Amino acid sequence: MNAIAVYDGTDEPVVTEKPRPEPSPGEALVRTLRVGVDGTDHEVISGSHGGSPEGEDHLVMGHEAVGVIEEPNDTPFEVGDVVVPTVRRPPNGANEYFARGEPDMAPNGQYHERGIVGAHGFMAEYFTSPAEFLVEIPPALAEWGFLVEPVSIAEKAIEHAYASRSAFHWEPESALILGNGSLGLLTVATLDKEFDRIYCLGRRERPDPTIDIIESLGATYVNSNETPVPSVPAAHEPMDFVFEATGYAPHAFETIEALAPNGVGALLGVPSDWEFEIDGGRLHREFVLHNKALVGSVNSGYEHFEAAIDSLSRFSDTFLGDLVTGVHGLDDFEAAFADDDTTIKTAVEFSAYEER
Amino acid sequence: MNAIAVYDGTDEPVVTEKPRPEPSPGEALVRTLRVGVDGTDHEVISGSHGGSPEGEDHLVMGHEAVGVIEEPNDTPFEVGDVVVPTVRRPPNGANEYFARGEPDMAPNGQYHERGIVGAHGFMAEYFTSPAEFLVEIPPALAEWGFLVEPVSIAEKAIEHAYASRSAFHWEPESALILGNGSLGLLTVATLDKEFDRIYCLGRRERPDPTIDIIESLGATYVNSNETPVPSVPAAHEPMDFVFEATGYAPHAFETIEALAPNGVGALLGVPSDWEFEIDGGRLHREFVLHNKALVGSVNSGYEHFEAAIDSLSRFSDTFLGDLVTGVHGLDDFEAAFADDDTTIKTAVEFSAYEER
Repeated sequence: MNAIAVYDGTDEPVVTEKPRPEPSPGEALVRTLRVGVDGTDHEVISGSHGGSPEGEDHLVMGHEAVGVIEEPNDTPFEVGDVVVPTVRRPPNGANEYFARGEPDMAPNGQYHERGIVGAHGFMAEYFTSPAEFLVEIPPALAEWGFLVEPVSIAEKAIEHAYASRSAFHWEPESALILGNGSLGLLTVATLDKEFDRIYCLGRRERPDPTIDIIESLGATYVNSNETPVPSVPAAHEPMDFVFEATGYAPHAFETIEALAPNGVGALLGVPSDWEFEIDGGRLHREFVLHNKALVGSVNSGYEHFEAAIDSLSRFSDTFLGDLVTGVHGLDDFEAAFADDDTTIKTAVEFSAYEER
Repeated sequence: MNAIAVYDGTDEPVVTEKPRPEPSPGEALVRTLRVGVDGTDHEVISGSHGGSPEGEDHLVMGHEAVGVIEEPNDTPFEVGDVVVPTVRRPPNGANEYFARGEPDMAPNGQYHERGIVGAHGFMAEYFTSPAEFLVEIPPALAEWGFLVEPVSIAEKAIEHAYASRSAFHWEPESALILGNGSLGLLTVATLDKEFDRIYCLGRRERPDPTIDIIESLGATYVNSNETPVPSVPAAHEPMDFVFEATGYAPHAFETIEALAPNGVGALLGVPSDWEFEIDGGRLHREFVLHNKALVGSVNSGYEHFEAAIDSLSRFSDTFLGDLVTGVHGLDDFEAAFADDDTTIKTAVEFSAYEER
């Protein structure tokens, strides 16, 4: 079968021939429909993040997949069920984090991430997976199912942020999403039902398709060239919730200044080392005197995939159509890895979904 | 009656004569037993924090008080009940935070703090308070009742830290308290039942009475001159919980490095402005990839006073006797404001408790 892989020491994905996998006991065989591309994939390709499975010279890409059950192989699934795989796998048998259904909380060394580090991904015509790592989704969502994983990332961060405010009465009204990439835009749509006023900050100048999407969702675009993060409270309002999806390290600390009293910031970016100066005294004082919180969040668990399915089912086809700027077949897969101002979210299509 | 106040433009507390207060409807008159002194008092005296009530030229000091009901004045209390007052008061009638019993979550401008900002404190022979801001304590704790307020500060921070980890299974074992001042030592004692291994970091060299207390509580002293905060994981272990009680701003950011995966740091210090360099990229990345959290915490609510009474009742008399290095009468009150290496925790005694 065909797969898309990046070979060690190279910096672009290629189509490669792999044997079709055989499901082991407890595993189902899945025919891949679509696999999304995100910033992590670009980091994997450039070599700044992730790595091939031990003893192999390449990594099959892709961690945002949707497929249909081809062979249930005595798992609870039926042929034709539409499923989304979770990303983390236990490296050496199970460990306590996987046993609890919280692989997203496993520390370094206690997980592989399919398509990212230590385990092949889903960019292949078929993949196998233990049934416990497959989440069934409604067939109506098959087309957009590759968005379940990125939305689940937002769901987890939102859940942890809310938990951090659960010791007191918290009725958030305003949210600021830092970053107008695909995760930022999906988060604007996800938070739509929770917040009265949503802002999304980016570096783009008008006209720009992401700004159009932000405004079509009823949110306010904040141009960071005109309004840096620390100026947001004065220019707009202090924010009850800030969701950082940029990987731009100064934003992690500026978030403290953008928050309203009792607010919380969720950090999701994964920057490289970068030394810079902050007014640490002022930030520390502000953090304490106004009961602020920051939570870091990575990956997602099974329940976040479930929450993401709920959210995805609420998104309008207009929004999804605007967000997904390209779905490319194997003959054209390079286009799915484009990273320019007209590309928002892309996927590689391995096979079309046909309703039974 | 006698009171201890600091006059605007001066930098030391003096005994001053004030009229004995008359309780308004809903208020009880309290005869003051003891009032503790802490770092905030020193900041108020130096003028770096807090301020006198509007239109007045002085502030009666003291926010850590214990007293006995002198005149219940138709409140639910009886003469002789031992009570501890909470600190925050609504500035102009009630507001939503006070109505919810969460004055500690009120933002700037929505509270006064008795003895700190905008309202006179409890360092007087008598004070009045609305009954709702008085917490009854067991008479057996009367002697140490002035410690309820500082312990309540720790209880709130601990509650918020735990809340931030409530979205997943969290079984913390190791805790690091930054600061061996009285709040740090009270926190070591408070956390004793929760954690298997407790560390307390300070700048003192042996022999030192705070180190003796730390070790008598079964905790490990960490000398920050030998082991800076970022080195604690390598020298000891990564910490599930860090409690910052120093006001030393670099510690707020170094806390991220001291934390174990999925750990949380509670920040309580209130530093002045201070610019310094950090490796913000590394800290941001570490925060995200290991699901870490930071919560800022100020003041405390009624339920935290209740929790503090429980904790205080568990503390041994040996610990309390070692911690409280001086209880001084009005003739000797200056000694309670000493701030040297032999002083740990002090109080001013306005009257002795006599069991009925």
